[in-house]
Amino acid sequence: MKNDEKPLILVTNDDGITAPGIRALIEVMNKLGEVVVVAPDSAQSGMGHAVTVNDVLFLNEVKIDDGVQKEFQSSGTPVDCVKLAISEVLHRKPDLIVSGINHGSNASINIIYSGTMSAAVEGGIEGVPSIGFSLDNFSWKADFEPSKVFVEKIAREVLKNGIPKGMVLNVNIPNLPLDQIKGIKIARQAHAKWEETFDKRINPHGKEYYWLSGEFKNMDSGTDTDLYALENGYVSVVPVQYDLTAYQWIDKLKRLEDEDK
Amino acid sequence: MKNDEKPLILVTNDDGITAPGIRALIEVMNKLGEVVVVAPDSAQSGMGHAVTVNDVLFLNEVKIDDGVQKEFQSSGTPVDCVKLAISEVLHRKPDLIVSGINHGSNASINIIYSGTMSAAVEGGIEGVPSIGFSLDNFSWKADFEPSKVFVEKIAREVLKNGIPKGMVLNVNIPNLPLDQIKGIKIARQAHAKWEETFDKRINPHGKEYYWLSGEFKNMDSGTDTDLYALENGYVSVVPVQYDLTAYQWIDKLKRLEDEDK
Repeated sequence: MKNDEKPLILVTNDDGITAPGIRALIEVMNKLGEVVVVAPDSAQSGMGHAVTVNDVLFLNEVKIDDGVQKEFQSSGTPVDCVKLAISEVLHRKPDLIVSGINHGSNASINIIYSGTMSAAVEGGIEGVPSIGFSLDNFSWKADFEPSKVFVEKIAREVLKNGIPKGMVLNVNIPNLPLDQIKGIKIARQAHAKWEETFDKRINPHGKEYYWLSGEFKNMDSGTDTDLYALENGYVSVVPVQYDLTAYQWIDKLKRLEDEDK
Repeated sequence: MKNDEKPLILVTNDDGITAPGIRALIEVMNKLGEVVVVAPDSAQSGMGHAVTVNDVLFLNEVKIDDGVQKEFQSSGTPVDCVKLAISEVLHRKPDLIVSGINHGSNASINIIYSGTMSAAVEGGIEGVPSIGFSLDNFSWKADFEPSKVFVEKIAREVLKNGIPKGMVLNVNIPNLPLDQIKGIKIARQAHAKWEETFDKRINPHGKEYYWLSGEFKNMDSGTDTDLYALENGYVSVVPVQYDLTAYQWIDKLKRLEDEDK
């Protein structure tokens, strides 16, 4: 970025380009730089790091609100949107990629299933400082006003100081009025999982089908986790890496090499 | 598992239940235990850790070949298949989950996009020792015979000794005749990325669309990586974790907490 240039900021999400959460995010980013939005044309929740390899992708410039940002909607996944933006839309590599604000928490193991966070991870892989933001409220009518304060604070900090190579930030915001949010906590990913239950039904043609459902189960009693921070009124920030190597187990697994001899 | 019981093995993949790769995997697993297959009814490559939350899932018992395994195909993603299997199909928690054999390498950053590996990760989250297998050959006509030898060796070892909690194995097999494969190497995930190019076309109705394409770029000169092992004729085994916290950066990020005070 040259000194006289505004930062170039790419905005995406997984709830779709018309979601109130991305509208709040765009509003904040318009204060910080030149904003380009490339986001899915429909909800893509639960898409994880899916990319579209067996189908075509559409990309169209759109105007959703009165903001100064440029906007494009795509038929692809959140990760497709980041790839399309960098390859086809932006005139240079962005200075920041932000994804969200997700309607619903992406704390703990939810990061694995989250299109919001996968878009941020894709940004990191592309070498761009990237942040995923989520509000702990699934409702379309969630109040994003308190979130905006922390989104701006964290985005400004990252634009100023960057993020170390190889990681992105997973930011989760508690569903509280601003005066009840106690501050920011750097945290680790809590050990938790979804206990699945499938709702089995019969369609009008007599064929069985299932709806995925489930209950979230926190198995972590630590006080340094993202779930603990959220439950105690803090905004959680987890540094997330995409080198998935479990280095601590490499030596232990050498037995596989030995057995092979 | 009781002493007189055979190990219960769940088999899945992302190339679809009729792919030659999963047929090879089932053949090997039938030697090691009681095999249940729950796999996608069509190719799901590039689906990452996608789960189906906004659509229904179908699940049908099928018979594809003459093996003794029980088989079910699902309209869902690889991760859906693991969830459906554990919740709706299996009579007890399996002793091993294997995914693949993928037609094409899932070494390095490919793990992030891979449905094969996401199925294995989902198995790990469920607390089951899990392995993803991939052959470094995209062809439907790839020769899986040499792979079978290493699949059996590694699966037997894992059935005997388990895998530490919190990790799964990413196994990639070079596309070589058996006598040219030098053995097994425990490795770390190489630092690499896809450089995207989009092929822009016009459909018969005059509308622009894109096909995602790209070139794989290895940016890692290390000799301890999965890519190095594969290129040098070894089967690579990377221990993979799904706690994505970048612990080494937690302290450094404390400035975000401080600035907030």
